[in-house]
Amino acid sequence: MSARVTVAFAMAPEARERVFPPARTAQFEEVADVRGFLTELESPEALRVLADVDVLVTGWGAPFVDAAVLDAAPRLRAVLHAAGTVKPYVADEVLRRGVRVSSAAEANAVPVAEYTVAMIVLANKKVLPIAARYQESRREFDVEQAFPGLGNFGQRVGIVGASKIGRKVVELLRPYELEVVAYDPYLTEADAAGLGVERLGLDELLSTSDVVSVHAPSLPSTRHLLDARGIGLMRAGSTLVNTARGEIVDQDALTARVVAGDLFAILDVTTPWVLDDDHPLYAHDHALLTPHIAGSLGVELGRLAAVVLEELQRLVHGRPLGYEIQADQMAITA
Amino acid sequence: MSARVTVAFAMAPEARERVFPPARTAQFEEVADVRGFLTELESPEALRVLADVDVLVTGWGAPFVDAAVLDAAPRLRAVLHAAGTVKPYVADEVLRRGVRVSSAAEANAVPVAEYTVAMIVLANKKVLPIAARYQESRREFDVEQAFPGLGNFGQRVGIVGASKIGRKVVELLRPYELEVVAYDPYLTEADAAGLGVERLGLDELLSTSDVVSVHAPSLPSTRHLLDARGIGLMRAGSTLVNTARGEIVDQDALTARVVAGDLFAILDVTTPWVLDDDHPLYAHDHALLTPHIAGSLGVELGRLAAVVLEELQRLVHGRPLGYEIQADQMAITA
Ligand SMILES: NC(=O)c1ccc[n+]([C@@H]2O[C@H](COP(=O)([O-])OP(=O)(O)OC[C@H]3O[C@@H](n4cnc5c(N)ncnc54)[C@H](O)[C@@H]3O)[C@@H](O)[C@H]2O)c1
Ligand SMILES: NC(=O)c1ccc[n+]([C@@H]2O[C@H](COP(=O)([O-])OP(=O)(O)OC[C@H]3O[C@@H](n4cnc5c(N)ncnc54)[C@H](O)[C@@H]3O)[C@@H](O)[C@H]2O)c1
Repeated sequence: MSARVTVAFAMAPEARERVFPPARTAQFEEVADVRGFLTELESPEALRVLADVDVLVTGWGAPFVDAAVLDAAPRLRAVLHAAGTVKPYVADEVLRRGVRVSSAAEANAVPVAEYTVAMIVLANKKVLPIAARYQESRREFDVEQAFPGLGNFGQRVGIVGASKIGRKVVELLRPYELEVVAYDPYLTEADAAGLGVERLGLDELLSTSDVVSVHAPSLPSTRHLLDARGIGLMRAGSTLVNTARGEIVDQDALTARVVAGDLFAILDVTTPWVLDDDHPLYAHDHALLTPHIAGSLGVELGRLAAVVLEELQRLVHGRPLGYEIQADQMAITA
Repeated sequence: MSARVTVAFAMAPEARERVFPPARTAQFEEVADVRGFLTELESPEALRVLADVDVLVTGWGAPFVDAAVLDAAPRLRAVLHAAGTVKPYVADEVLRRGVRVSSAAEANAVPVAEYTVAMIVLANKKVLPIAARYQESRREFDVEQAFPGLGNFGQRVGIVGASKIGRKVVELLRPYELEVVAYDPYLTEADAAGLGVERLGLDELLSTSDVVSVHAPSLPSTRHLLDARGIGLMRAGSTLVNTARGEIVDQDALTARVVAGDLFAILDVTTPWVLDDDHPLYAHDHALLTPHIAGSLGVELGRLAAVVLEELQRLVHGRPLGYEIQADQMAITA
């Protein structure tokens, strides 16, 4: 019998194809015995694999890992999730029974933060509305008159939610001469100081920021965290960037202000997921809609696989995991 | 007689209004005696001011500072230019006669680099073409199939010209997991190592980069530095970002490839400055045109004034200038 760690992959077939193409799984085989690629955890075949598996690598579309799976996998030591949110994939019970859970949410946070920082810089400079107007007019025009106060220098950026993504945004913005403030009820004064942001109440953040960027998780408590009143507080000419979840923002209130011409919006997420054909935000020069692309896509999927491989290596060598999830985090994460 | 340093401002009235509004000039008055705001350097009034001026602060639309001006300003010790390029404003003779010249080109480089980095990140992710297609289709679609290889992870970014702006782009890209390479005949191996970029020949850079960003100065020797052959080398699906000058790129060759659908272009500069009404790049989803806005605008003008004020303070306190121009730089700078 081999003393090598045994691994099985469990996720939707496309997730496996996209995140773990053969060249990637070959790297896993150097570190551990790969016992199978599963799409469910109930069939006799799956149960045979589970019977002597040490590590389960999950991903998008993975079957739910619950008590029954643990019973079938007595050796299971860890679930390594090659995507962001683990909640839909792993029962709380898994953590309680001492199986370690790690997620690639930090790696998945990177492209979202990168998208966001690019959009914040462009938003302060009004680059996209200027480009839209230039495309229409095909004439030079006085951009400073058209968009008073444009530019990136001393502008205030308000981060709603110092989450994994929110923190990475703050870090990437450090070399910019911008003032970054944050609202997050879980952010301590010491954390804020370490991060280099000022903590503000949500109302003050909304009413004083040039760009507001939403990075809170979608929870019952964050539904319409930016409600009509909050949206109403935002400064004329300011921009809302939302890469988190549509339901955190009162979209109708936001739309009304964009259509009225005094607010800008950059939305990677909406409610519903794809807006109705005739939604006014599609065609408005002050809005940019992207179809939920800020997260890992294309070559960025390689980062998720790389992070999971690193976790596996740590596990094999008895080193602490880099991205282990603690039971008490489950309640306040996305 | 006051021992304080005397300063006069010389530039176009709008430059003065935009860069040196009263709140800014008040800061200058704390440091020196402000003797006047000039728009020319020839009238009897201007000559009276020049007669006992130590420092000239110039800016956009400033009158040319040449030997005649030096003759009229026997005390002149320094010309502090509150904009980028000094060449159109200051004769070589000024440096030769020992008057120090400083420019805010480093400060002016900041917003151009910020614009560029935002565009590089969006270009790798194909964010704007995806947004355009989403706006048209109003349906979810397979972005990875539509734009193979999209994303920011290990992609190659080719910097043409490790100029002031080019270097700042490299610095801002450091936290990103991208591979940055540069072509610049004046970049030494040691400089490249310090900067953390690999030096490549132009052909290799063009044929292997996912995004090519142009930061060379416009000189006779850089006209069509990216000629039809060079544009032809660029990888299908790659993006050209140009914030430098239109004439550095063979625009017709670029346009042909964009229209053919296998190249993307983000252009803050074109030839002519404003393209003809019917130019195909205006309406193409794979191109974004902005009307020369990457440089300092709006609140970013405050950075130029701040830098000139710092230079004046250094001068007054006998400290070395931060951005002094050396005679031998004049030939290879923008
Ligand atoms: N657009 C995309 O492609 C994409 C990709 C990944 C994640 N997301 C979304 O981005 C958001 C952030 O993801 P993450 O992984 O950084 O989240 P996360 O799991 O790190 O968020 C948890 C943190 O949010 C903060 N928080 C909790 N409740 C809050 C409240 N009421 N107000 C403000 N802050 C609060 C706390 O700091 C908490 O630690 C989520 O909504 C997630 O769904 C989007
Ligand atoms: N879009 C805007 O708003 C805006 C604003 C400012 C500057 N610019 C333009 O951006 C470009 C860069 O400006 P800068 O101030 O960084 O330039 P710079 O004056 O620093 O450029 C000089 C440097 O360019 C490099 N260089 C010289 N010849 C080269 C060649 N043949 N090939 C490659 N590199 C070469 C050398 O490193 C040299 O030191 C210029 O074209 C400038 O006109 C545009």
